Amino acid sequence: MACEVCQIPAEDEAFLLFAAEHWKVYLSFKQSYLGRCFIPLRRHAGSLSELYPEEWLELAGVTVRLEAAIRKAFGATLFNWACLMNAAYQEAEPEPHVHWHVRPRYDGPVELEGLRFEDPAFGHHYRNGEHMAPVPYQVRLRIAERIRECL
Amino acid sequence: MACEVCQIPAEDEAFLLFAAEHWKVYLSFKQSYLGRCFIPLRRHAGSLSELYPEEWLELAGVTVRLEAAIRKAFGATLFNWACLMNAAYQEAEPEPHVHWHVRPRYDGPVELEGLRFEDPAFGHHYRNGEHMAPVPYQVRLRIAERIRECL
Repeated sequence: MACEVCQIPAEDEAFLLFAAEHWKVYLSFKQSYLGRCFIPLRRHAGSLSELYPEEWLELAGVTVRLEAAIRKAFGATLFNWACLMNAAYQEAEPEPHVHWHVRPRYDGPVELEGLRFEDPAFGHHYRNGEHMAPVPYQVRLRIAERIRECL
Repeated sequence: MACEVCQIPAEDEAFLLFAAEHWKVYLSFKQSYLGRCFIPLRRHAGSLSELYPEEWLELAGVTVRLEAAIRKAFGATLFNWACLMNAAYQEAEPEPHVHWHVRPRYDGPVELEGLRFEDPAFGHHYRNGEHMAPVPYQVRLRIAERIRECL
């Protein structure tokens, strides 16, 4: 089994925001959308249509807890949720693993740790590429800490 | 209340695939991704974190029923699900209304009614713009009919 989502590197645990029974919530490496998160299902399942009812119900609670925390931490205006799993299909034998990408969207700039986070496409589809330089490790740690404080 | 999702034009009912208690499933106007659907919540609610448990549980059933039908109808390989609601925030007084966009993805071309549907970015993020000419009304009706036959 070569599924990368099943084998999240130990060092990424520094960015774990919270672990629920069926889902884990991590701050994403990409932070152009301040507070962007990656939410893998804890078991290996390949599509939303394979989820169990208890996994959907827990996801409901995750949306409540996470959206409230990021609104409180940084004043996010809304949240874009997407379950895509395209990259898995670049492999000859795809092993998709259900996960969500959450991009908080902002109607104005946010200053944090000397950086300015902007959402130049607010009101429109998120930009798929990064629209700012990579956010330093220490700042990402601080973003994660701030969200955890608001959970 | 100016919410456009609350006021779906009567003529769009020709593209209704099925109505559940809490969600309705329509074939989208945009069909570059063959079988693309638009799934509004039947009541007005502004974010995923406001959904009731029974709405999540019914969504689970919608994913099962819809993914199976589109796989059967056209051989879709996987499905991209997204809940964004950005356009609502172009208004001075946003009235977001929860809805999903579902883009079936295909690892090869599909011929239908004399048209060729391709997925040139397969294995990667969907293209936000349309990558083929608008699909004629009669062909969209046929696509909807074909999915309904597979439900």
